[in-house]
Amino acid sequence: MKNVNAAILIIGNEILSGRTQDKNIAIISNWLNTKCGISVKEVRIIPDVEKIIIKNIRILSKIYNYVFTTGGIGPTHDDITAQSIAKAFKIKYGYHKEAYKILENYYGRSNFNDGRKKMAKMPINAKLILNPSSAAPGFIIKNVFSLPGVPSILNSMIDNCKKYLTKGSKVYSNTINLFTVESNISKELGLIQKKYKKFVEIGSYPFFRLGKIGVSVVSRSTSKTKLSRVSKDLIKAVKFKNIKILKI
Amino acid sequence: MKNVNAAILIIGNEILSGRTQDKNIAIISNWLNTKCGISVKEVRIIPDVEKIIIKNIRILSKIYNYVFTTGGIGPTHDDITAQSIAKAFKIKYGYHKEAYKILENYYGRSNFNDGRKKMAKMPINAKLILNPSSAAPGFIIKNVFSLPGVPSILNSMIDNCKKYLTKGSKVYSNTINLFTVESNISKELGLIQKKYKKFVEIGSYPFFRLGKIGVSVVSRSTSKTKLSRVSKDLIKAVKFKNIKILKI
Repeated sequence: MKNVNAAILIIGNEILSGRTQDKNIAIISNWLNTKCGISVKEVRIIPDVEKIIIKNIRILSKIYNYVFTTGGIGPTHDDITAQSIAKAFKIKYGYHKEAYKILENYYGRSNFNDGRKKMAKMPINAKLILNPSSAAPGFIIKNVFSLPGVPSILNSMIDNCKKYLTKGSKVYSNTINLFTVESNISKELGLIQKKYKKFVEIGSYPFFRLGKIGVSVVSRSTSKTKLSRVSKDLIKAVKFKNIKILKI
Repeated sequence: MKNVNAAILIIGNEILSGRTQDKNIAIISNWLNTKCGISVKEVRIIPDVEKIIIKNIRILSKIYNYVFTTGGIGPTHDDITAQSIAKAFKIKYGYHKEAYKILENYYGRSNFNDGRKKMAKMPINAKLILNPSSAAPGFIIKNVFSLPGVPSILNSMIDNCKKYLTKGSKVYSNTINLFTVESNISKELGLIQKKYKKFVEIGSYPFFRLGKIGVSVVSRSTSKTKLSRVSKDLIKAVKFKNIKILKI
């Protein structure tokens, strides 16, 4: 079993201020888990401030196997992620030859203005993450992967990160939805969690659906066998208490 | 002008894994900003692991005026926020008299099982944040405010935090939506940002609406006067370039 982990660094005042609801965390985390067996262990959301970006890049890239950043690689003055990451690693920031060619080709030489050219500026020896939606590439430097902030564009690019990642053990999950409240099954869940402590992580999450209150019990493990044992134990406990299981 | 800031600490494996999309960051941040003039400067999302919660509570409570936590104060085994915060501050963890009374009264003595009693356990000298939705209170210890993870419940409780907060200067914002792409106005935005550097923060965010591509230019400032000057400059620059302004 190989544990490979990652952190996500969301860079953008618009997320911190609550103006925009982040969607990228779920996209990246789900993709890393299902496609690469990589678990996200920490997320930070920070403003578009150079020294804060530098500090967080340095800290997170030391602690985790990979760091994924979103936001701040566009053409405007508040897009400072690329230059900040270059500074964090003391790498030269400037036009990336391949990125420049891609963008010049996409916009055409006569429409390739300064704002568009800015998107070709990054740590000059970075690897590129190709962008099938709007050309402007993301980049990889050391263990940091920089992606754009627009979720639809990010989503179209993320598969292009795969070849650069070391895969870990896939985490399987199993959800059982119950028509009950958490406090009615907390004792049983606690006992089952204790029994499978080292192998399975059990979480319980209240939900409201079709006007009814329920609880989703989510088990996660790298072992399918252990996961199915937990499910059997859960169903047994739930039936003993006469709790209705909701199929979704 | 008084700067008061805060951090948000989202505690929950379900958010980190991408299973659940967080909604609480936007609720808390918008509320703090509009109702209290408090700016959120950092958000962290961490797993339900005691030592990680303790470490982050200690760090964030030192750096920021306030820390808001969400999640982990329910009745199940994976709800460990209250005990972790008590440990972070070396305060006794146990039944909170007032919280116990509220919950006993809500559930009735005969239905007040161990899971439900657990929700009355917290740092014993905490102040309570009353919960009009489902009784189980949040709590305040030092500068840390602990709220539940279910967004509808959190939303119903957040106004009850107000009386415990020192207010800061309200940040006003102004949005101008344009039918253009960022790279077409990046130069002008950069110049205007430079002119009002100390007083106004200008961000630009691409959007797709009604099948059209556009850019929202968001200006934020504690000064309404400065904000309206920026708007005038922006509109002037935009008209000069023949860019259409979209009213929303």
